[in-house]
Amino acid sequence: MKIGIIGLGLIGGSFALAARKYTVGVSLYGQDANPDHLATALALGIVDHPLEGEQYASMDVILLAIPVDACLTLALPLLDQINDNALVLDVGSTKAAICKLLELHPRRNQFLATHPIAGTEFSGPSAAFAELFVHQAQILCETHKTRPDLLEWATQWFRNMNMEIHEMEAEAHDKHIAYVSHISHISSFMLGKTVIEKEKDERTIFKMAGSGFASTVRLAKSSPEMWTPIFKQNKENILEVLKEYISNLEDFERHLKAENYDQLFEQMKNTNAIRTILAGINEKNITNQ
Amino acid sequence: MKIGIIGLGLIGGSFALAARKYTVGVSLYGQDANPDHLATALALGIVDHPLEGEQYASMDVILLAIPVDACLTLALPLLDQINDNALVLDVGSTKAAICKLLELHPRRNQFLATHPIAGTEFSGPSAAFAELFVHQAQILCETHKTRPDLLEWATQWFRNMNMEIHEMEAEAHDKHIAYVSHISHISSFMLGKTVIEKEKDERTIFKMAGSGFASTVRLAKSSPEMWTPIFKQNKENILEVLKEYISNLEDFERHLKAENYDQLFEQMKNTNAIRTILAGINEKNITNQ
Repeated sequence: MKIGIIGLGLIGGSFALAARKYTVGVSLYGQDANPDHLATALALGIVDHPLEGEQYASMDVILLAIPVDACLTLALPLLDQINDNALVLDVGSTKAAICKLLELHPRRNQFLATHPIAGTEFSGPSAAFAELFVHQAQILCETHKTRPDLLEWATQWFRNMNMEIHEMEAEAHDKHIAYVSHISHISSFMLGKTVIEKEKDERTIFKMAGSGFASTVRLAKSSPEMWTPIFKQNKENILEVLKEYISNLEDFERHLKAENYDQLFEQMKNTNAIRTILAGINEKNITNQ
Repeated sequence: MKIGIIGLGLIGGSFALAARKYTVGVSLYGQDANPDHLATALALGIVDHPLEGEQYASMDVILLAIPVDACLTLALPLLDQINDNALVLDVGSTKAAICKLLELHPRRNQFLATHPIAGTEFSGPSAAFAELFVHQAQILCETHKTRPDLLEWATQWFRNMNMEIHEMEAEAHDKHIAYVSHISHISSFMLGKTVIEKEKDERTIFKMAGSGFASTVRLAKSSPEMWTPIFKQNKENILEVLKEYISNLEDFERHLKAENYDQLFEQMKNTNAIRTILAGINEKNITNQ
């Protein structure tokens, strides 16, 4: 079985490694806009061969692991070129735009929209590892539009990698993910920006910052190339969450100004309920740390 | 040498364990407003004896590791009761209020204001461990007001624990720490609040939230009992940072609404500079994970 991976970063590279580890008899073909990434992926044995455009038709599966704007550009011509039994999957952090784009394509039933909830703070093929997806959620959208045999193959493929499969409509995915992922990135980027602007003397930050600060601004290390198109594609949902987040911060500011400390205490106490949710996430990640 | 620890939580308990491990010949006395914490600390051998008020005069060192409001209440009567060669230290996250309070006390020179930049997401004596402070920063404020022999002892004590010592004026400490610690907690608490309010169905959050979300809201698990008085004592500095943080978020919101994606990209790219700072923090924490 020939699997083509387009985009050999952390996610694409890890899918290649997981495919090799958990599926018997795969040949892996890789493609990346960055020639260094391709060379590294070949050198590390993440993929076996480079994937050229003329080989698309010979692939059994093609996984798109590139920024969501590039994905929109490539998906249509790619579907036009694959063979009649091939499956194309994407792994982007937005699902409505790609599903909408492919809605009327005659090969829509050879496409599966997925979002693996997995990642680390590192990027590129050298950051990839086969266990990235173990016990992590894999969200499949609009599965009824994918040909049953192809859907079944993909589902089994993800199960072999020990992923936990969930189904969701694309619009619902984008709405929820704005709350549990996209806003976290904005919060973190803007926190990093605020501190960098103010604390020009980095040494001061360096010596005073501890693990709490590191935790809240970790996502500010994320790639703007990856995140700008996500924010673009999920603009409306993100604006809604951002409005609520800013409103909560302003509310906190008002209470602090008015010295309503009981109110602040109550809000924090109630928010401690996040412990339950985080315990669940940590449990999922235990084997992955 | 008799060391009294008032407050047997993560910080106080870890100082007790570190004192035992890194200093020869110490007897440890402990006190906690929560009788369960005292019992646990005695049972785990974190301290050797309970510390009663009438024993304050026989202690060589007393460490205050309690919420910053309780610290203000206890510090004055405590200084009145110690012997002429004893040292009192606090470890709170605000330094101006305690330094101001004790400014004119006849025993001001037997007091040292400190802020160890260390912690984990867990609390209570059972979370304490002797290596919590290894390679972590210990900020000493207004050291010129502490008697040189007592300052020297304390400095050596922290060095024995492998802490990295920095000096800073109390006002400067409170201003900087608002940027690198206090605002992180507010950002995290309000992010948690936003998500909890919207996503009533916790199962949805659970399955869609990954390690990025966990990282940004981790501090929302923090204790309101500890943080409310910190926000109170550092109100003015926090209001200043909070204003800038909200303004940056509103700026992001405006650019997103106006679809100025180049602007968003630039802001994120510049904020990636946080990597350098975080690399420094991670390096410090390597032996502590």
